[in-house]
Amino acid sequence: MDDVITRLRAGLPAEAIHTDPDVVVSYAHDMASFCEAGTPAVVVLPSSVEQVQHVMRTATELRVPVVPQGARTGLSGAANASDGCIVLSLVRMDRILEISPVDRIAVVEPGVVNAVLSRAVGEHGLYYPPDPSSWEMCTIGGNIGTASGGLCCVKYGVTAEYVLGLDVVLADGRLLSTGRRTAKGVAGYDLTRLFVGSEGTLGVVVRAVLALRPQPPRQLVLAAEFPSAAAACDAVCAIMERGHTPSLLELMDRTTVRAVNRLGRMGLPETTEALLLAAFDTPDPAADLAAVGELCTAAGATQVVPAEDAAESELLLKARRMSLTALEAVKSATMIDDVCVPRSRLGEMIDRTAAVAAKYDLTIGVCAHAGDGNTHPVVCFDHTDPDESRRARESFDEIMALGLELGGTITGEHGVGVLKKEWLARELGPVGVELQRGIKRTFDPLGILNPGKLF
Amino acid sequence: MDDVITRLRAGLPAEAIHTDPDVVVSYAHDMASFCEAGTPAVVVLPSSVEQVQHVMRTATELRVPVVPQGARTGLSGAANASDGCIVLSLVRMDRILEISPVDRIAVVEPGVVNAVLSRAVGEHGLYYPPDPSSWEMCTIGGNIGTASGGLCCVKYGVTAEYVLGLDVVLADGRLLSTGRRTAKGVAGYDLTRLFVGSEGTLGVVVRAVLALRPQPPRQLVLAAEFPSAAAACDAVCAIMERGHTPSLLELMDRTTVRAVNRLGRMGLPETTEALLLAAFDTPDPAADLAAVGELCTAAGATQVVPAEDAAESELLLKARRMSLTALEAVKSATMIDDVCVPRSRLGEMIDRTAAVAAKYDLTIGVCAHAGDGNTHPVVCFDHTDPDESRRARESFDEIMALGLELGGTITGEHGVGVLKKEWLARELGPVGVELQRGIKRTFDPLGILNPGKLF
Repeated sequence: MDDVITRLRAGLPAEAIHTDPDVVVSYAHDMASFCEAGTPAVVVLPSSVEQVQHVMRTATELRVPVVPQGARTGLSGAANASDGCIVLSLVRMDRILEISPVDRIAVVEPGVVNAVLSRAVGEHGLYYPPDPSSWEMCTIGGNIGTASGGLCCVKYGVTAEYVLGLDVVLADGRLLSTGRRTAKGVAGYDLTRLFVGSEGTLGVVVRAVLALRPQPPRQLVLAAEFPSAAAACDAVCAIMERGHTPSLLELMDRTTVRAVNRLGRMGLPETTEALLLAAFDTPDPAADLAAVGELCTAAGATQVVPAEDAAESELLLKARRMSLTALEAVKSATMIDDVCVPRSRLGEMIDRTAAVAAKYDLTIGVCAHAGDGNTHPVVCFDHTDPDESRRARESFDEIMALGLELGGTITGEHGVGVLKKEWLARELGPVGVELQRGIKRTFDPLGILNPGKLF
Repeated sequence: MDDVITRLRAGLPAEAIHTDPDVVVSYAHDMASFCEAGTPAVVVLPSSVEQVQHVMRTATELRVPVVPQGARTGLSGAANASDGCIVLSLVRMDRILEISPVDRIAVVEPGVVNAVLSRAVGEHGLYYPPDPSSWEMCTIGGNIGTASGGLCCVKYGVTAEYVLGLDVVLADGRLLSTGRRTAKGVAGYDLTRLFVGSEGTLGVVVRAVLALRPQPPRQLVLAAEFPSAAAACDAVCAIMERGHTPSLLELMDRTTVRAVNRLGRMGLPETTEALLLAAFDTPDPAADLAAVGELCTAAGATQVVPAEDAAESELLLKARRMSLTALEAVKSATMIDDVCVPRSRLGEMIDRTAAVAAKYDLTIGVCAHAGDGNTHPVVCFDHTDPDESRRARESFDEIMALGLELGGTITGEHGVGVLKKEWLARELGPVGVELQRGIKRTFDPLGILNPGKLF
């Protein structure tokens, strides 16, 4: 291992290399609970493409695994270290290289924080939609690696749809440019998209060309209370079936609402079984909200309250954004699921998740990007209780099986990492897994890039 | 070869197999000019997934190349036969299997014609945006294979953005399911996107889950006349920079305008150097067109004429849609280019294309999806004149080199096929080509799927 560090030092400044055990161990894992993580041999924080290339060349020569990391806000353990690995943190490569209002693109390094980019493009009247809950901390490189989503997706789609081109350092240190900075382009296989969501297993993203949109009007939010999750899901289906395009359509169940009130004193209505938030950033959001409010009432909503202004809207969004954190505080531990089903099966998904909670005698709070059919059932349990922990794990798995049964996927936006790798094979099937492994071998024949993730 | 046909007959009905030389040769090529095409040994028209699997199993066993085809409206020779191949035409697999307004998806077989799908989903208040010029003839399978674009892309993007999941018959006859029918999903590498635009070189698409949108209001079109292409491009940049979202932003140069008038008696203004068409399908298109009209005037437009109604708008669109056909009638032959540059370089691209035309003493008409920076320079020449033919080929290549120099791509939406395969390597570079070939080997180790295309 001394050999690795000596070789790394030949191409990196001293301050870019950490070997202090206390420092090194602090880079061991991301924000996923209950995922295995090893101890890195060394943490490197390069500040240039050439330095990343040096790291990868060294790793290839010495056959040392490399785990690329952003801000480690991921929820699947995809950034977790393996024993003896080089942790390659991209957070110091955080420059916004270009913002072009005419071409509607930004060119960025991977360590740029999502919120920093959002604000920077906002100053040019532009909008970078992807907004994972961790947007104040997470990096664009991490967003690309995990193909992350957020609240905006029901109207604006996920990170993948905003990545036009990439510079990637390959396992052997060579530099690959993919994609384009044009609006369209179909030259060859879409390698850009292949890297998005590949969790650092195919290469290290060192530069990205991102598509931007014009800044929409500020969104106005409506909150609707329902006597059951099923009724709220009926409203979701009606809203989408009628051709509305909300900029946000989120659901919080009673457990989530109570947890949020407890954490943030948000004053949400605790007696409600399900709270639906809908928003529009259209030219006339009040009119759209009125139409949606009627659909909510028709579906059985007991209260429909449009926000008076942007500040009230922001407060409702804040409540929604703190859902996962709030549910984490319910018991000593949580497992956060991320099952996405066809929108038409959302009600069934939520009802049957409640049945799973009852069967295992557990608290499972559900918040959902309802417009996308993407639910986050959060299993709350006492990790010091072995029986409860076992039940938590079993219920977590049962929820994924339920998602697949309903025609959905085991992960809508959090990724596979180590948390769900056994389940990935179930979703993809043997032919899919074989081809995915073939792609992995094409890009990383020695298997040094983030080993043990995905497969 | 008798052996191939005997084996094919074992799993296909008699009427699905054509060996008559006159019939077979009629499947030799798509609509690209000047692209090599061989003579197929046999044409098969399967009507089920099982039959496609039988064809691919046979091809693998006997090592016979297979060329998948849709309606053969492609413009790059990607569907051209190779000598002794099996042409695998998917046009009989033309069922729309499902349309779901709640999930906003359609599930289709590959032979469904684009316009048939568009009308079918329209009856449910839904919208399938991709609209290549050949939309009345081309198939969804062909659209997926070539990642085709159209007029809608400036607002709605390309085919790739509407493909959620695929069933694909692999080279060895196995069936692979990729992707999802949910709004989001990040389980493993994005194989779906890899197949889009792969020109039948990785597998045969037999089923697709497509994303739909709510039907927008009917678009209203404005026509603006400019004294130069550069001024029209300035208007395009101003429109996009100001944050407008037109549903269409198209440019026709004087050569194109005249050709269209000659073919269709459209009454377009012949004295204008460049005609810009802009459209909006927003709630208040007249207001948006007024704003855009002002930007056109500020950029030097001599006339700005908003369409009075939907019928007038439709007429302008019809004129634009017939541009390529009209330019094809200018001389005995044409070569249609498809260079896409960053929007901010569009004016330079068009001006320098005019310089190429002057240098080679050729007529080169340019129509463009201006909002995307995607130009279609059409080189018109007399193919019986060897010197003019040589100059045509050289100018065609020079235009692609120009596109790359301006930070663009050799193909925005028509694909590589055989027409541009030498140029693909120039755009991708050696590392990119090596990885793309590696992917090809992973999916098609025997190299029987559409050999000689792309690389």
